[in-house]
Amino acid sequence: MATVRYPLPDLNTLPEDIRAKILEVQEKSGFVPNVFLAFARRPAEWRAFFAYHDALMLREGSSLSKGEREMIITTTSAANHCLYCVVAHGAILRIYEKRPLVADQVAVNYRKADITPRQRAMLDFAMQVCLESHTVEDADFEALHAHGFDDEDIWDIAGITAFFGLSNRMANVTSMMPNPEFYLLGRVPKAK
Amino acid sequence: MATVRYPLPDLNTLPEDIRAKILEVQEKSGFVPNVFLAFARRPAEWRAFFAYHDALMLREGSSLSKGEREMIITTTSAANHCLYCVVAHGAILRIYEKRPLVADQVAVNYRKADITPRQRAMLDFAMQVCLESHTVEDADFEALHAHGFDDEDIWDIAGITAFFGLSNRMANVTSMMPNPEFYLLGRVPKAK
Amino acid sequence: MATVRYPLPDLNTLPEDIRAKILEVQEKSGFVPNVFLAFARRPAEWRAFFAYHDALMLREGSSLSKGEREMIITTTSAANHCLYCVVAHGAILRIYEKRPLVADQVAVNYRKADITPRQRAMLDFAMQVCLESHTVEDADFEALHAHGFDDEDIWDIAGITAFFGLSNRMANVTSMMPNPEFYLLGRVPKAK
Amino acid sequence: MATVRYPLPDLNTLPEDIRAKILEVQEKSGFVPNVFLAFARRPAEWRAFFAYHDALMLREGSSLSKGEREMIITTTSAANHCLYCVVAHGAILRIYEKRPLVADQVAVNYRKADITPRQRAMLDFAMQVCLESHTVEDADFEALHAHGFDDEDIWDIAGITAFFGLSNRMANVTSMMPNPEFYLLGRVPKAK
Amino acid sequence: MATVRYPLPDLNTLPEDIRAKILEVQEKSGFVPNVFLAFARRPAEWRAFFAYHDALMLREGSSLSKGEREMIITTTSAANHCLYCVVAHGAILRIYEKRPLVADQVAVNYRKADITPRQRAMLDFAMQVCLESHTVEDADFEALHAHGFDDEDIWDIAGITAFFGLSNRMANVTSMMPNPEFYLLGRVPKAK
Amino acid sequence: MATVRYPLPDLNTLPEDIRAKILEVQEKSGFVPNVFLAFARRPAEWRAFFAYHDALMLREGSSLSKGEREMIITTTSAANHCLYCVVAHGAILRIYEKRPLVADQVAVNYRKADITPRQRAMLDFAMQVCLESHTVEDADFEALHAHGFDDEDIWDIAGITAFFGLSNRMANVTSMMPNPEFYLLGRVPKAK
Repeated sequence: MATVRYPLPDLNTLPEDIRAKILEVQEKSGFVPNVFLAFARRPAEWRAFFAYHDALMLREGSSLSKGEREMIITTTSAANHCLYCVVAHGAILRIYEKRPLVADQVAVNYRKADITPRQRAMLDFAMQVCLESHTVEDADFEALHAHGFDDEDIWDIAGITAFFGLSNRMANVTSMMPNPEFYLLGRVPKAK
Repeated sequence: MATVRYPLPDLNTLPEDIRAKILEVQEKSGFVPNVFLAFARRPAEWRAFFAYHDALMLREGSSLSKGEREMIITTTSAANHCLYCVVAHGAILRIYEKRPLVADQVAVNYRKADITPRQRAMLDFAMQVCLESHTVEDADFEALHAHGFDDEDIWDIAGITAFFGLSNRMANVTSMMPNPEFYLLGRVPKAK
Repeated sequence: MATVRYPLPDLNTLPEDIRAKILEVQEKSGFVPNVFLAFARRPAEWRAFFAYHDALMLREGSSLSKGEREMIITTTSAANHCLYCVVAHGAILRIYEKRPLVADQVAVNYRKADITPRQRAMLDFAMQVCLESHTVEDADFEALHAHGFDDEDIWDIAGITAFFGLSNRMANVTSMMPNPEFYLLGRVPKAK
Repeated sequence: MATVRYPLPDLNTLPEDIRAKILEVQEKSGFVPNVFLAFARRPAEWRAFFAYHDALMLREGSSLSKGEREMIITTTSAANHCLYCVVAHGAILRIYEKRPLVADQVAVNYRKADITPRQRAMLDFAMQVCLESHTVEDADFEALHAHGFDDEDIWDIAGITAFFGLSNRMANVTSMMPNPEFYLLGRVPKAK
Repeated sequence: MATVRYPLPDLNTLPEDIRAKILEVQEKSGFVPNVFLAFARRPAEWRAFFAYHDALMLREGSSLSKGEREMIITTTSAANHCLYCVVAHGAILRIYEKRPLVADQVAVNYRKADITPRQRAMLDFAMQVCLESHTVEDADFEALHAHGFDDEDIWDIAGITAFFGLSNRMANVTSMMPNPEFYLLGRVPKAK
Repeated sequence: MATVRYPLPDLNTLPEDIRAKILEVQEKSGFVPNVFLAFARRPAEWRAFFAYHDALMLREGSSLSKGEREMIITTTSAANHCLYCVVAHGAILRIYEKRPLVADQVAVNYRKADITPRQRAMLDFAMQVCLESHTVEDADFEALHAHGFDDEDIWDIAGITAFFGLSNRMANVTSMMPNPEFYLLGRVPKAK
């Protein structure tokens, strides 16, 4: 097993804005996802990372649902073999979509996943951006337009893929492990 | 979503030996894994497939534990992007190893999985057999010997990888989907 | 040169059914193809292997000719760099097709081989199953239907490719060498 | 020629902080590098992008020189076939290093470039992060330690590679073209 | 930096025909491109190399302009990571085309270069010949015919790509470095 | 089957030097290998091609035997999927080596061929030059020196690989088919 390569900082030594955000996440999720601590040892990068994350993932007016954004992340992170992102964002995908099987499906082979043709086109493009972005051409935009995506949606798909490509590489290099809680999230229907 | 490409046969129309085995599996597992029905439309292939499966997976005297055999299957099936085998054998891996996280780990990136150096060497070789078996040389055997594997163990690793490479290809071509039950198996500790 | 990695068993020590089948092959062919002895050290695997082989290769009602089945094997075994299968099945291909040049053609570049458009489509699909089965989609089935293949034929193509993918990997790992007899078989017209 | 896919915004319509920064860059460089305008149509992403950029590229205490950081960008951007980044950062590399040939060398084949063994090790690792970050292991860290890089330097190499991997993908998707000025910068010794 | 692997011969020790040609090139260019000296240590190969070069590059009646021939060389040499040819032929490309930006564009990503659709088709084919010539089929010829290339033009594209593939490999193996003069040639408009 | 893409010229219309050489080859071999006619439609290229061929293949003082040179061609031509060269040079290899099996062995998987460790090192390097010449480094030279190859031998290995890489590409593009005679040559011991 890969050892954790960079020690996690003590929460109490972190700048106040970062500490506050981490406590807020802990309050909401019940635990602190490791990415929040792992990146906090470099506060300037931490702030830029989460600002970028929120700009893409919380953008209003996008025609991509929250579940679809997580679908992009889970699919491309699997292509990048990023354990942290596949497990953590797979969990969030299951929760948003309220479908316990979809994350494993897109992670192993999105072509066989139980998704719509529009989502399939979205993931085809995300994988192209992930693996060979230099081949993107006007025809690829047209294929997405045919499924109702406009150019802002395409920017979103590309941006989310590109941003998590960064995240995947940092998680791989630092050997960031997913919190055990993520593995089970969204797999069992909540008791009512 | 890919449609099921070959209709599943009616259990009652199957030859008696196949029907009996399927009912036995159902009795034991609580459901019939799709592979048993999907292949049953060709009885001769069904019989050979499961005979081969059992010869490799139930061989006595192997130094590979049952969990390790499932680890090989889960890892190489992920490399072959076989949804059925990753989900089904990932479940069996979790159960045998009594470790709910290990299947996702080896499926996404076995290099980061929480496994022993011996298991790591086993999976390195399995992946070589899976992806570029023509490069196997004596030095690869020596590397495995150094971890305590003998030549019969190496045959087992190669055989399991090769056999499930066959299974992965058939599952991919027939668009075999994992039973929903598999996704959750072994993730939640059994109530006592 | 790679050494033979697993000793061949003595014919007289083998279980009677295996010994009988091997003697029968020897009688018919004039020699014992190495695969029969190489796998016989594990009788249960031997029986499953040849049962599977016969189920696929001797299936009646298939629209694939015997020569076409060998064409699939020779082509995909070359992609897997399996010396044993390219040489042995290339020989059988030459014999069945009564065409001494076709085996070398499909082994080096099936796109340039002197085959029919239907056979070309068959080999395109076999190579897809061999190299990237996870990309098989409904459109691939339709392309084969257009050449007159039905779904059972497609199962045959996939099954033969998948089965010999197993065989290729075992031959590569065990360093199985083709019998010298195979190299020349079918190259010279038989004296009458 | 690819058309510019997203219209550049009018400088006067941009938020004041972005406008001010762009004018400052223009003042300093004599022109506005296209990336500043291309990303400005989404102010939140713009701010996060340049904050991340500065956190990595201006970090004090790093043992990587400014030239070495640009060397990483030029090399990995070439692997990602990103015209904008190869041309723009190649120019900055030439200027920092005061060596007019080095940018073309690392872009075409960094193994043949006129750089130090330490820089070669740095680029080997950057390329690994760029192309197959999931294979990074402890031994890769040790190889860099042997050249005097500490773990913070390694984080810098990985971070710069990962961040510009994001930038490369966005530039490729949006078809961002380098300003003509970049092509010649640093190639001709400045008149004194 | 790679050392020069084979010593350059003394000009005065070379056979008269080779010496004369080299002096002529020096007279015309102002310097001796390294390839002329690097290959001269084997006069028979030198003569064949430049005879082949001239047969392809000076062929009359071709519909490929001189600039287009250099465009093919620069693009495919970048795919082969040949520093010498990208820098030297990039320079000649800039000069013939009188366009200082085009060489860097095709070297990094010809899909984004400012070229005509006909040139794009030409480079698509050149890259196919460079990277996977065994997949060339009649349909590829038809695609080129549609852009006005006839079969002789196609032979030229293939021949130039194939010949410089030879040149790229020899330059890579011998670690041939471009003359510093090439880097700047054609980038700055000539003073009148 | 691929059609022949460029018509073969009439022998009687060819320039006298080319016609004479072709008749000489026919006299010696009993047939005219297709490459002689296929390239003759462009006499200047024909002359350069065969001059280069002879410079490399007939060079005296090389420590590479004639058989070893053909071994390089057969192995790398298989990697380039060139039917003409694998079949034609495989035949010559069998004849020079007086070993009827070696050509098929190196074409399918040279790692399993019955060759010496020195020849194995030679083919490892030839394959590196064929497939990724930009990675050649000083250590690769040292590995060859350890097997007794000097720098001139290494130039020969690289040159033969590079030259037949050119030949492979032209044969693939023109769809040059091997003469039927080649397939059998050297497979059957000559009657005495």
